[in-house]
Amino acid sequence: MPPLPLSDRSGRTTDSPITFFIQKALETPGLISLAAGLVDEGSLPTADVAAAVAAIMADPAAGRAALQYGSTQGLPSLREKVLRHVCAADGVTPGDIGLSPDDVVLTTGSQQLLYLLGEALFDPGDIVLAEAPSYFVYHGVLQSHGVRVVPVPMDDGGLDVAALDAKLADLKRRGELGRVKLVYTVDYFQNPTGLTLAADRRPKLVEVVKKYSTEHRILILEDAAYRELRYTGPDLPSVKRFDPTNEFVAYASTFSKPLSPGLKLGYALLPSDLVAPVLHLKGNHDFGSANLAQHVVDRLLASGAFDRHVEELRRVYRAKRDAMLAALDAEFGDVPGASWTVPGGGLYVWLTLPPGVDAGPAGPLVPAALEAGVLYVPGEFGHVPGEGGELPRNECRLSFGVADAAGVREGVRRLRAAYRTLERAGARGLAAV
Amino acid sequence: MPPLPLSDRSGRTTDSPITFFIQKALETPGLISLAAGLVDEGSLPTADVAAAVAAIMADPAAGRAALQYGSTQGLPSLREKVLRHVCAADGVTPGDIGLSPDDVVLTTGSQQLLYLLGEALFDPGDIVLAEAPSYFVYHGVLQSHGVRVVPVPMDDGGLDVAALDAKLADLKRRGELGRVKLVYTVDYFQNPTGLTLAADRRPKLVEVVKKYSTEHRILILEDAAYRELRYTGPDLPSVKRFDPTNEFVAYASTFSKPLSPGLKLGYALLPSDLVAPVLHLKGNHDFGSANLAQHVVDRLLASGAFDRHVEELRRVYRAKRDAMLAALDAEFGDVPGASWTVPGGGLYVWLTLPPGVDAGPAGPLVPAALEAGVLYVPGEFGHVPGEGGELPRNECRLSFGVADAAGVREGVRRLRAAYRTLERAGARGLAAV
Ligand SMILES: Cc1ncc(COP(=O)(O)O)c(C=O)c1O
Ligand SMILES: Cc1ncc(COP(=O)(O)O)c(C=O)c1O
Repeated sequence: MPPLPLSDRSGRTTDSPITFFIQKALETPGLISLAAGLVDEGSLPTADVAAAVAAIMADPAAGRAALQYGSTQGLPSLREKVLRHVCAADGVTPGDIGLSPDDVVLTTGSQQLLYLLGEALFDPGDIVLAEAPSYFVYHGVLQSHGVRVVPVPMDDGGLDVAALDAKLADLKRRGELGRVKLVYTVDYFQNPTGLTLAADRRPKLVEVVKKYSTEHRILILEDAAYRELRYTGPDLPSVKRFDPTNEFVAYASTFSKPLSPGLKLGYALLPSDLVAPVLHLKGNHDFGSANLAQHVVDRLLASGAFDRHVEELRRVYRAKRDAMLAALDAEFGDVPGASWTVPGGGLYVWLTLPPGVDAGPAGPLVPAALEAGVLYVPGEFGHVPGEGGELPRNECRLSFGVADAAGVREGVRRLRAAYRTLERAGARGLAAV
Repeated sequence: MPPLPLSDRSGRTTDSPITFFIQKALETPGLISLAAGLVDEGSLPTADVAAAVAAIMADPAAGRAALQYGSTQGLPSLREKVLRHVCAADGVTPGDIGLSPDDVVLTTGSQQLLYLLGEALFDPGDIVLAEAPSYFVYHGVLQSHGVRVVPVPMDDGGLDVAALDAKLADLKRRGELGRVKLVYTVDYFQNPTGLTLAADRRPKLVEVVKKYSTEHRILILEDAAYRELRYTGPDLPSVKRFDPTNEFVAYASTFSKPLSPGLKLGYALLPSDLVAPVLHLKGNHDFGSANLAQHVVDRLLASGAFDRHVEELRRVYRAKRDAMLAALDAEFGDVPGASWTVPGGGLYVWLTLPPGVDAGPAGPLVPAALEAGVLYVPGEFGHVPGEGGELPRNECRLSFGVADAAGVREGVRRLRAAYRTLERAGARGLAAV
């Protein structure tokens, strides 16, 4: 059989490493998944969606509009609502930050926007600065585009903006600033760490990219996928909020997390001159995301059902987060050197085990955990390829998204049981590493 | 303001030329659009979709499954049904043509598949052989990928397979066969001409690409978007049907035309070793198209509603096609040198005006038609860039998709009125060109 003539890009594009883990979760009966990025099942808005579709289809004009082709950019009334939604959270008017509904693009989940933006900006050899660790699916996008990733460390305040500045200064010194296209941050309750970019770093982040935007603009991709899932503390202003001329920040978000992933609807607020390049690409990809989903979300925003649903989700996830944190206290409180993040929102807790513990995909904790009936995502997957040196292997991403509170507790208990088998292996196990 | 650092691909990616025309149609009140690729409004399946969503959401497990993330490849039960649907039309079993549901991929319309396949295969400078004229949005995709298009002429039997053979022989002679990746055909009621690939050419097409697949496989992209919209004559077997080892033909189709574009759901039957490369790319694009739409279509296929709907659409469109053909007879029957296709299905009639008439976007017929209150797509847009020589300018794509029968008749009457103003311009107009 003559070989397939695959493209260079195809050669750079691989399966997400997490696919194996998700597969496992589906195959193993009784397994508690603290790995899956799925959302809470019980609170999915079945009644809201049923009511919205019934109302749309009961009105012949509305039904026809929803089942016909939409536009590449997306439903105008929804673009307007989305813009108002973000601006209300930021306490500004669209005009304050140079935005109109023409700057909003609706996409097939926010993932599609992450992809399209990369396609608009990246050539092989370009440089992206990304938080380390970071959203692993986006690493795949960067790899596929042939981009070189420069990792930027994080601390409890999220992306270390001073370190970013230093990295950019270094790139400038080496004459590589011309290849720097983008800074990527998941700045609310990050996937995978649960960390949030501190308030005082937000305006600074914009200042830093401005400072280095001498030859061309360096953009910030603010991935706000988890912003609405906030359980404690005030809503911080977006990074976008500090870009009053709408030049430097692309704000991407989604209805997958605060409403329903099955609608697969995302949105972005883009610098005005990025809109056309992104839409031209999207015209080739699909010339518009599923129109029915847009009409459904438009109704749920208009009726207030979306806001009510977000309140409900906050209650549900807050309880599950609390269950996970309490279980970690109870189970891992006695493990010297173990620590974990206390996220104010989102779906993830980042567990750091004592140095030397191998929680990676080839290490002993994964099979021990599966044996005990629990699955987590090895933190290694979240690290930026090329981060340099040995990647830390003692980290786990634990999600309280899909399991219920009892499942979350039992999952953490099982993880501790698995960890105990490593402790017992003693000199052969933990002490040896 | 420092300039945006756009990618090479972005530089090659332009707006679809038809956008202007669609825009016009939306702006001008009372305009009859024979241009839009939209589908018939009155027959959109609002009741079917309402019933399917109500049934899904009434069953808690089904509702949650539909509103949760799906998989990148798409809903297994729907992939199975889609495969059965195509095989039934071809009078074969999946096994007969080497296919299983694992070879089926669900996409955001068939457009996304056209894009992903190109991304998997094409590097700048590669060669694609395409019917001329052809689906203009796909031209945009090819241009964006930096592909060189080699046009292949068509006649009443669709793609001229002997001419394709000769073009490939020529490319071989010039040592360029190594760059040939794909042959593109819309083989049922083509957009834009309405022509269908003749039965005896279908197996030959596969033979021809096999003959030249010496260094690597040359693939056929069979774009069967309009297959179900058949008004006269028997259903011809697909080109895929003649690829029993599932190696050479990627079959792409959609629910946009025979059901609803608002669901934006497409599907492809792919050579087995193309599935992983396409899915890896799709994993980066969106890791799965809207799951709710997949569950809706799955229900409509299972219940028989889809088949009933297709029957209904055939009745509706057949009448509109007949109205357009009758109006062309009545209005243009007396124009010497004017001719048009008589499509057995689809949404389009291809009108050829006398040589020398400029129906192109910069010619006199477009403004005259707008003045008369009708819009068509200049045939020029359907021609393959680089087709060589002067592109023909005397062709129009007329769609009976969106207007009702009376509108179709009135639209053709207005087009004749517009054409009459050119005739009247006499020496200054038609005779001069
Ligand atoms: C940080 C982040 N960004 C983007 C996405 C994309 O989600 P979607 O495409 O469903 O909006 C996810 C999904 O898990 C995510 O975690
Ligand atoms: C020939 C052809 N292929 C593919 C498509 C893509 O349609 P969709 O993405 O809605 O399936 C179209 C739409 O007009 C078409 O005419």
